[in-house]
Amino acid sequence: MDINDYMHTLGRQARAASRAMAKADTAAKNQALLLIAAAIRRETAALKAANAQDLDAARANGLDAALLDRLTLSDKAIETMALGLEQIAQLPDPIGEMSSLKYRPSGIQVGQMRVPLGVIGIIYEARPNVTVDAAGLCIKSGNATILRGGSEAIACNRALAALVKEGLRGAGLPDDAVQVVDTTDRAAVGALISMPEYVDVIVPRGGKGLIERLMRESKIPMIKHLDGICHVYVDDKADLDKALRICDNAKTHRYGTCNTMETLLVAQGIAAQVLPRLADIYNAKLVELRGCEQTRAILKDIKAAIEEDWRTEYLAPILSIKVVGNVDAAIDHINTYGSKHTDSIVTEDYSRALQFLREVDSASVMVNASTRFADGFEYGLGAEIGISNDKLHARGPVGLEGLTSLKYVVFGHGEVRQ
Amino acid sequence: MDINDYMHTLGRQARAASRAMAKADTAAKNQALLLIAAAIRRETAALKAANAQDLDAARANGLDAALLDRLTLSDKAIETMALGLEQIAQLPDPIGEMSSLKYRPSGIQVGQMRVPLGVIGIIYEARPNVTVDAAGLCIKSGNATILRGGSEAIACNRALAALVKEGLRGAGLPDDAVQVVDTTDRAAVGALISMPEYVDVIVPRGGKGLIERLMRESKIPMIKHLDGICHVYVDDKADLDKALRICDNAKTHRYGTCNTMETLLVAQGIAAQVLPRLADIYNAKLVELRGCEQTRAILKDIKAAIEEDWRTEYLAPILSIKVVGNVDAAIDHINTYGSKHTDSIVTEDYSRALQFLREVDSASVMVNASTRFADGFEYGLGAEIGISNDKLHARGPVGLEGLTSLKYVVFGHGEVRQ
Repeated sequence: MDINDYMHTLGRQARAASRAMAKADTAAKNQALLLIAAAIRRETAALKAANAQDLDAARANGLDAALLDRLTLSDKAIETMALGLEQIAQLPDPIGEMSSLKYRPSGIQVGQMRVPLGVIGIIYEARPNVTVDAAGLCIKSGNATILRGGSEAIACNRALAALVKEGLRGAGLPDDAVQVVDTTDRAAVGALISMPEYVDVIVPRGGKGLIERLMRESKIPMIKHLDGICHVYVDDKADLDKALRICDNAKTHRYGTCNTMETLLVAQGIAAQVLPRLADIYNAKLVELRGCEQTRAILKDIKAAIEEDWRTEYLAPILSIKVVGNVDAAIDHINTYGSKHTDSIVTEDYSRALQFLREVDSASVMVNASTRFADGFEYGLGAEIGISNDKLHARGPVGLEGLTSLKYVVFGHGEVRQ
Repeated sequence: MDINDYMHTLGRQARAASRAMAKADTAAKNQALLLIAAAIRRETAALKAANAQDLDAARANGLDAALLDRLTLSDKAIETMALGLEQIAQLPDPIGEMSSLKYRPSGIQVGQMRVPLGVIGIIYEARPNVTVDAAGLCIKSGNATILRGGSEAIACNRALAALVKEGLRGAGLPDDAVQVVDTTDRAAVGALISMPEYVDVIVPRGGKGLIERLMRESKIPMIKHLDGICHVYVDDKADLDKALRICDNAKTHRYGTCNTMETLLVAQGIAAQVLPRLADIYNAKLVELRGCEQTRAILKDIKAAIEEDWRTEYLAPILSIKVVGNVDAAIDHINTYGSKHTDSIVTEDYSRALQFLREVDSASVMVNASTRFADGFEYGLGAEIGISNDKLHARGPVGLEGLTSLKYVVFGHGEVRQ
């Protein structure tokens, strides 16, 4: 079959399934999630065998160690997938929830109802667990989904898709509600982002190159995550212990995550006091420091930061440091160079804390907390399909609610417009 | 100046102004709105003179009567603009509102803050009042805006822009917060929708042709309204009086509005009873009826509806009528042929009412009320910038809240991630 015809078939099937999913009751959706979890545990051996096929092919193609690591499905990873589904089953069902129902002078009562988005296309890379996490979130939120995983994981994704479909059928739901694109043909992605009649939103998960390409080419709105250039600003009214603890954690807890601090901003009035103590911490952990001129007047042996550093997401043990005059200069730097992801101020000053919260234009803005908290689980969303840097629809960690929208509902009693 | 350079200058200025608007306090924003209202009243004569210039040019260019009508700025229209601004000043300020602040097991407190979208590009046609309505909504919601009105209204829009800027300056706000594109060069639209670095969202208001072109070409997300193919379904458990009243009002209250009924669905069991009485009402008002076969078995002298009728927004005294088996068939027809705008069921049956509310996938879904109520004022939003058929971000009438988004705020006490 022609790849475009194939993708359109998936699209038509997804659209039909999305209507059934939108009206599915909570019990059926939860039953599907629990059946899939059980099937995944039962088929651990078969999943590992499929994964071994993928790993052999990846090794034969000379893929690097980091990618092989992401591709590997261990016993623990399989159990984590099953547990994740069980957790999603325990979350409250967002669909059908009504809010703000108010009577209007005309006599009608107007409010909003939470409803699924419809069909969600998810484009991702090697990690096979995304297949199950994304399927689980879409099922619970009453959406249908078309999943396009990396070609490296095709055998494993096929095996997982079969188990997901088994669970859906077992709960009396249409198994087209979750479809894995069963081809490694790259044209499938182009087709998926070009059929707005069948797909309501695209969620891309992957490297910056993939996302930028999709941004240029997609005919469908996206919930996307581009960069994580996160900042901590240490104010001159900061509690020094909190500052040291937060700056350490925000940079060194994990280097490769999008909510890791990439640039440290320090108020002039506290720089001489705080920078040497921070440098000791970072040096002990082999973090490379790159500083502005004022920073280097204090930390004399570090590299100079260039303009490019302020715009860079290192995803590595590298940190750029800039001394700023005050909270205004810090906010200005963040709104100019940041990626609207996550930024934190360390201060005991009430007014500056509120000013920072209000004026920093990022998806997550924090006071006296590590940027590493910007995460669906830590925020209590239960699970996340990604973190959005967009301003429309969903900002920050996107959980079940981000996969829904609100429609207006009107309860009337025969009213007509005057 | 090159048109691209000109539009980029507007974009840079808007971006800078949007930062000041995001932190502007409620009092300053309200003061600006009231100053603009006063300036508009004061300059009524000058506005009418500018409008006369536009009208002369329009007549010379042979524009039709309907367009001349939309272009005309009467004393009443000018007073309505001023009143509209005063009403927006009285609405609560959505910006900075915090909600759902909850403590998490880690010790941080997480919630959401409502913030402006940033810079909003509005593209519209002849009506000069859109300039003032849109400016007012953007000012109150803390956004900057670039307004691109129809070239027919350029003199009037220029005059209004000067008054808006006067009001902004008088309140100590940057007058670049509202910029009217001061050229009739059509390339300005192409430039406006191609600078995502300066514009966060495009709100197009106009005919279907304009919107479809923008959908194809825009590099920026849109809050848009395409079609209003609205339905009323008269269930066989309907109260007959309510059905007659609602079907009359939904079709004949105004023919040219997007929330007017275009297709009437009637349950088989009540068709013979309700259709003749409705036909009397419509005939008296000279509404042309086009029916399915079953309808024509009852209303023998009406035209046959063809497939195309179910997909048509007449915006005229024409109504297509279809007899359907039951509520399931009605929902199916609406989800297949409708435009996800506004649909209403007339019934006294509890379960069918709830089923219709849940399963019809439209921005506004109603029970026993006229579709004509789908409107920002009627819903209590205070004012609207448009009605969205989109599923992402804002569905239905878009007021102040639709021009904002929610960011996460975290109140910490020195917490770090474990």
